[in-house]
Amino acid sequence: MPPRPLRKIGIVTRPRPADVPGIVRPLMQWLAARDIQAFYDPETARSLNDEAAMRTREQLAEETDLVLVLGGDGTLLSAAREVAPRGKPVLPINLGSLGFLTSFTLDEMYPALEETLAGRLVASERVMLKATLLRGGKAVEEQCVLNDAVINKGALARMTEVRLSLDGEFVCRYRADGLIVSTPTGSTAYSLSAGGPIVHPSVEAIVITPICPHTLSDRPLVIRDSCVVELSLLETPDSVYLTLDGQKGVELATGDQVRITRAEEKLKLIQPPRKTYYDILRSKLKWGEA
Amino acid sequence: MPPRPLRKIGIVTRPRPADVPGIVRPLMQWLAARDIQAFYDPETARSLNDEAAMRTREQLAEETDLVLVLGGDGTLLSAAREVAPRGKPVLPINLGSLGFLTSFTLDEMYPALEETLAGRLVASERVMLKATLLRGGKAVEEQCVLNDAVINKGALARMTEVRLSLDGEFVCRYRADGLIVSTPTGSTAYSLSAGGPIVHPSVEAIVITPICPHTLSDRPLVIRDSCVVELSLLETPDSVYLTLDGQKGVELATGDQVRITRAEEKLKLIQPPRKTYYDILRSKLKWGEA
Amino acid sequence: MPPRPLRKIGIVTRPRPADVPGIVRPLMQWLAARDIQAFYDPETARSLNDEAAMRTREQLAEETDLVLVLGGDGTLLSAAREVAPRGKPVLPINLGSLGFLTSFTLDEMYPALEETLAGRLVASERVMLKATLLRGGKAVEEQCVLNDAVINKGALARMTEVRLSLDGEFVCRYRADGLIVSTPTGSTAYSLSAGGPIVHPSVEAIVITPICPHTLSDRPLVIRDSCVVELSLLETPDSVYLTLDGQKGVELATGDQVRITRAEEKLKLIQPPRKTYYDILRSKLKWGEA
Amino acid sequence: MPPRPLRKIGIVTRPRPADVPGIVRPLMQWLAARDIQAFYDPETARSLNDEAAMRTREQLAEETDLVLVLGGDGTLLSAAREVAPRGKPVLPINLGSLGFLTSFTLDEMYPALEETLAGRLVASERVMLKATLLRGGKAVEEQCVLNDAVINKGALARMTEVRLSLDGEFVCRYRADGLIVSTPTGSTAYSLSAGGPIVHPSVEAIVITPICPHTLSDRPLVIRDSCVVELSLLETPDSVYLTLDGQKGVELATGDQVRITRAEEKLKLIQPPRKTYYDILRSKLKWGEA
Repeated sequence: MPPRPLRKIGIVTRPRPADVPGIVRPLMQWLAARDIQAFYDPETARSLNDEAAMRTREQLAEETDLVLVLGGDGTLLSAAREVAPRGKPVLPINLGSLGFLTSFTLDEMYPALEETLAGRLVASERVMLKATLLRGGKAVEEQCVLNDAVINKGALARMTEVRLSLDGEFVCRYRADGLIVSTPTGSTAYSLSAGGPIVHPSVEAIVITPICPHTLSDRPLVIRDSCVVELSLLETPDSVYLTLDGQKGVELATGDQVRITRAEEKLKLIQPPRKTYYDILRSKLKWGEA
Repeated sequence: MPPRPLRKIGIVTRPRPADVPGIVRPLMQWLAARDIQAFYDPETARSLNDEAAMRTREQLAEETDLVLVLGGDGTLLSAAREVAPRGKPVLPINLGSLGFLTSFTLDEMYPALEETLAGRLVASERVMLKATLLRGGKAVEEQCVLNDAVINKGALARMTEVRLSLDGEFVCRYRADGLIVSTPTGSTAYSLSAGGPIVHPSVEAIVITPICPHTLSDRPLVIRDSCVVELSLLETPDSVYLTLDGQKGVELATGDQVRITRAEEKLKLIQPPRKTYYDILRSKLKWGEA
Repeated sequence: MPPRPLRKIGIVTRPRPADVPGIVRPLMQWLAARDIQAFYDPETARSLNDEAAMRTREQLAEETDLVLVLGGDGTLLSAAREVAPRGKPVLPINLGSLGFLTSFTLDEMYPALEETLAGRLVASERVMLKATLLRGGKAVEEQCVLNDAVINKGALARMTEVRLSLDGEFVCRYRADGLIVSTPTGSTAYSLSAGGPIVHPSVEAIVITPICPHTLSDRPLVIRDSCVVELSLLETPDSVYLTLDGQKGVELATGDQVRITRAEEKLKLIQPPRKTYYDILRSKLKWGEA
Repeated sequence: MPPRPLRKIGIVTRPRPADVPGIVRPLMQWLAARDIQAFYDPETARSLNDEAAMRTREQLAEETDLVLVLGGDGTLLSAAREVAPRGKPVLPINLGSLGFLTSFTLDEMYPALEETLAGRLVASERVMLKATLLRGGKAVEEQCVLNDAVINKGALARMTEVRLSLDGEFVCRYRADGLIVSTPTGSTAYSLSAGGPIVHPSVEAIVITPICPHTLSDRPLVIRDSCVVELSLLETPDSVYLTLDGQKGVELATGDQVRITRAEEKLKLIQPPRKTYYDILRSKLKWGEA
């Protein structure tokens, strides 16, 4: 937690299906009563039909001491891109069902804010990855992800063929629907559906999970997060895409290279103090009870 | 095998990478020497640069007594669509690596033809499925498949939500990258990569395999092939496609229904007499030896 | 259901943790009031501390028109061995959590009996398998199973090596912890935990699922239930066992053969009319709701 | 590698099926010619029928500068127990098929020795785990493992129920055939067969893989290797065992606890300089070629 007092809070929301005005207006009053300035992103401004305290997401991340994210894991993933590089902590409140990342409920919002203001809630750090798309040797796209960078074939394409090397050592050629390169945080998202392991966020690792590989012994691979992951597109006759945190996609071409390394910045994520990582896992994965 | 002698043979080839003229011209002479008429499809005509014996694939399937397919499993899948409904046997010769379906090698072509002409090679029957796309209750697309009908999200889409019912009974809602409905023949193709079982072609069954399901207990399902499989697209904000035998794709929209039933026609497939189904499995899947 | 009226009912229970006397005594009165004779097995007699209406399980199966099983799936599996060969229907009531097979709850017992007596509940048939252990060519053990016959290494053994052939054709050698040969009914039991598919009970199939195979492409195999499955133990230096329906175990030795075929008898199983097979699957596997 | 010259080498062999005398006698002469003393373990002494240079394994590990292991991965696993705590490097030569750990072939033995003597082959370090069995709170067994500590039910037992906690936090209760706690080195052994990921030896992690879990969402878990892993046996009516590196087994009882932590000592393992970790993976797992 920042040692200095929280004087400015940014608010990011997902427009639907939540009642954003019904949540944000009282929240703004609550914060004002505590002498804390609040700003919100353009999406929230639209929901409120009020641009008075609107800031771009970049400004929010730059100018505030804490960013409150109201939404689901998807809302947090998109906010992380702006907030993480600026080192501000994120307090995530889920508006729907429990998320892996957004594990405070709406009922817990005010208590969590109280605790955070009092300096009693500590943010833990989550590693992010930096994905760079190289075309003809030039970086044409670069972005940080909290969950994963995915190479994925289009629905009508037959298969992708991707060559993987790690720190310059050839690993293998995957013939598959695609390949997921995931942080530990992302290991419980898409990678899990594709057969990957659950990796605790404190493990310094990257998970590489093939999607529907032709070779049945092509299994998920866990490597050090200090590795340089290089993916080369071999034969890409059809539409193949690079997708970043499930949100942004770029079409790839034969010969393209995607280089993935640990990002310098980490996301500072505030989590409920009385729910462990494993409590959330048990609940989300419907494991048996104690 | 047809009781009457084989007087007319159709030839279907894949243009690349094989030397089609170098294979087809001597074959035509070999057949002529045995008083057998040979025809070929337009693709082959292009390779030969000779349209003298060209027929459409429909004509080939209609007018000949046997169709010789030179290529890989993909070539056979596309030929099966025309040939199966007309009840003609297929003799498949692979031009590349061993296929699950095309398990005669080029070296075995003449011996296999000799055996077939002598009535000593018996075709086994392979079940096919009929997939019908219903939009607003009307059939807008209908096709038979030898391997599978697949509902698949585009690379940039987040997920598909598909409701499955069998013979009118609700089974479940899949939240996944897609869903594969496969014949036993197709069980060793895409379904296997997605985690499905190997189903012997003689089992009267359909395999339903989810692709990267969110719910980890959504496992492959094997049902009787007399079932009516109905898939309804629930929320389809993004691009989702129906792909038939990995070759033909149709974009789907929310509310679309895909109905899949066993096709009336079966494919008559000639297979090497001295290689069992399990011999081919062992070789393709690199199982240990005896 | 038998056309003739049900005059005699057999009762099989599991001793713990249920209150057997509290359930069985009123049930006996209820049956007596309807002029139906009731008998119970030795286990139940012990719970009741009353041998007046005790019969061996064989006698129960022989002399009654219906067998009521109060317990879990395990109780039903063990009762099926005696009841199935004698062709009597089984009405299963679960005393604990919902079972795949015992899907009536205790609350539903009297209504289910009413319906059954009125001839409105129809038993469906479940295929069983006959497992024969051959040593030096001689059958030394033979038993029918409703779920599965399993070859399994002991905890301290390193691995089993089993040769599989089907209808005399060599399939492969498994190097694994073991091998499960399952009916469709058993496909949702042990086989599912080992990675096998869910097979609807109406599919005429046997599922062969390796347990922790060394070769990663050794995947579950679904074959016709008319096949003769032959398993030969190759190298068995350590303790390896044949387990039948998870209940009875026999130690195996190198050279032993286990032959598995579809049993002649089927189990007549009464199931709740308003719960489909898929309703039970969804509930047991915690799939999402409709 | 030790900076001081190698003056004493220990030799450990597996008795069968290799021709131990044919390999070890010329090796001893080769070493003597270079003024290097050689000793061998009792197993090797039996093969040679010569106890002249016999030492116990403890002595070998204590008194020599390098231990040469001739055998397979199993031979290396058993030697590691004595050698790792004494900090001596191991040079493993496989006598059969390529191992994950023993990746020098017999042909490469003399060149590898030359290189090692010249100080040009560097040993990499492999993390080991220390497993302690606590009964009534007292440590009754303690051993280091290079691959894995496994809790496994006997063939006739129905299931194990194990409670997992990590650094004192409850994770979940596994109802399964067993549970594998593996190093990265062991991730390509038993854990891989049970569905675990491949974890590069440089990742500071422990893999926990359930064997045939009843709950299908009980997936492999990767945690930091600084964690204290605690496994409690809940209901253990039947035979359940703790197995260490697949070699030593101890029967467990209800209430037993197994505590697993990273061992202080690491194994110093010499590997072929021109084969990467991934080269060996590709070869062992029959991945496609470059």
